Amino acid sequence: MVTLGIDLGGTKILVAAVEDGKVLAHDQVPTPQTGFPDVLAAITASARTVLDGWEGDGISRAGIGSPGPLDLTAGRVLWAPNIVGMENAPLTAALEQNLGLPVTLENDANAAGYAEHLYGAAAGLGTSVYLTLSTGIGGGLFIGDSIIHGANGIAGEVGHMTVLPGGPVGGDGHPGTLEAIAAGRAIARDASYAYGLPLETKDVFSRAAAGERTALSIIDNAADFTAIGMANLVKLLDPAAFVLGGGLTRAGDFYLDRIRERLTLHLRGYPEPGVRLARLGDHAGVIGAAAVAARSARRDA
Amino acid sequence: MVTLGIDLGGTKILVAAVEDGKVLAHDQVPTPQTGFPDVLAAITASARTVLDGWEGDGISRAGIGSPGPLDLTAGRVLWAPNIVGMENAPLTAALEQNLGLPVTLENDANAAGYAEHLYGAAAGLGTSVYLTLSTGIGGGLFIGDSIIHGANGIAGEVGHMTVLPGGPVGGDGHPGTLEAIAAGRAIARDASYAYGLPLETKDVFSRAAAGERTALSIIDNAADFTAIGMANLVKLLDPAAFVLGGGLTRAGDFYLDRIRERLTLHLRGYPEPGVRLARLGDHAGVIGAAAVAARSARRDA
Repeated sequence: MVTLGIDLGGTKILVAAVEDGKVLAHDQVPTPQTGFPDVLAAITASARTVLDGWEGDGISRAGIGSPGPLDLTAGRVLWAPNIVGMENAPLTAALEQNLGLPVTLENDANAAGYAEHLYGAAAGLGTSVYLTLSTGIGGGLFIGDSIIHGANGIAGEVGHMTVLPGGPVGGDGHPGTLEAIAAGRAIARDASYAYGLPLETKDVFSRAAAGERTALSIIDNAADFTAIGMANLVKLLDPAAFVLGGGLTRAGDFYLDRIRERLTLHLRGYPEPGVRLARLGDHAGVIGAAAVAARSARRDA
Repeated sequence: MVTLGIDLGGTKILVAAVEDGKVLAHDQVPTPQTGFPDVLAAITASARTVLDGWEGDGISRAGIGSPGPLDLTAGRVLWAPNIVGMENAPLTAALEQNLGLPVTLENDANAAGYAEHLYGAAAGLGTSVYLTLSTGIGGGLFIGDSIIHGANGIAGEVGHMTVLPGGPVGGDGHPGTLEAIAAGRAIARDASYAYGLPLETKDVFSRAAAGERTALSIIDNAADFTAIGMANLVKLLDPAAFVLGGGLTRAGDFYLDRIRERLTLHLRGYPEPGVRLARLGDHAGVIGAAAVAARSARRDA
């Protein structure tokens, strides 16, 4: 089934006709920062470009991945950290009216992770966990063809798991969360403090790669706590694999090998899941959004 | 659909004919501690008693909850902590041969939690987490009519989640697990150390209830870390409710209120799930085992 996938990002909107994880046609426009009506118009125009140019079988469903928090049941964006004027935006209903198709809303990280789960680095595995190691730490949990949403749609907040009571306070206001210890911003915070000068995350990796003791300690500590968080996920969900994405993975094996080594230690006596890099790149969002639409169609059938 | 539920425990075997969470007939025999053949014979005899006395529609499926670790795919008990001679026992195949029915194997804690999820304290909720707060800390995770098993059947090891790196080493050999800080054995360990004399868990609760400062600190600490573990489960799975069972819950509101208060603190800014006591008592195991059998029948249909 060909469905329409829409990836609403802070800088660009990508729309694609997708079948079984393959992008068959796509269009891209910049994301307006002038409020929801303009965002809606931009998405609609880009979707129309793809739909009007499409000469295959009819596309009867769309899915959209959006930053959030979202109200998945009501199809609303509560607010979006990187897009102006999205407060309480009725994204699903407005798009359904403009496009004349049923539209399914999904969290953007879940959509990208779902694409990796079904068609990317975790394809063919029953259970996988997607982790974005970036400025913050996010995630998505996938079992079979399901995305775990929970009772209020907030499941998968991997970065907000407490792993060190008494540790640094994170963006959610709680001490010792994984994100507050091991995300990019935490690495920059710890290095800036330790060196006594303002450093960015990439500076810390450069200094660590050059063998600087303090920077290495900070990177090792982040890798260790990331592995503790992953080990906790193994004990709770027992995934067949982790799929890692996000900016910190660009440090490559220098960082990933540290995570893998610590994970092996923290999982002694437990089955050790695979640790794989995300591989769908910029297309993960539209592929996942289209997959969510296809799943909705199957469930309605 | 009426199915046969079997609860294999360390001291007794309970077998019941169950429909929609209701026990319609049951039989109970002691658990032999003389090896697998005798255990199998005892289960078979008890099951025969229930089946032969049953005058309703035919019972065509059985489920069994067993202590483990288990190999769910192969239907084997790898070993059982409280039953002699169960090493690598082919429980499912042997029972299927003796009873002439398809038999589905499930972990005993998952079976009890599944019963609470479908018919007990969490009935009607989409997602729930079952926690046994006892000598150790175990759990089960339930979404819709599914039990989360993971890739190797070890999902739901809630007590083995690391919540305090550098903390006391638990039964799984890892430091700072929830169980090693907040389970009954950990409470007794901490009190015995602090008081300098051998104390049991119930002694610590008695001393705390009498207002002894040291005992109160130990109970508060256990409640706090239990709440941290539960908050982590909210961030990962977002359950509609927790169902609590196990010996520590017999301390009643004295302990449960402490857990609830700490959970509220650790979940500021998050939706707070219900915290309910398990309510199916000794019948949870057979009801859950029967429900697992009924679900297998539906999936095969």
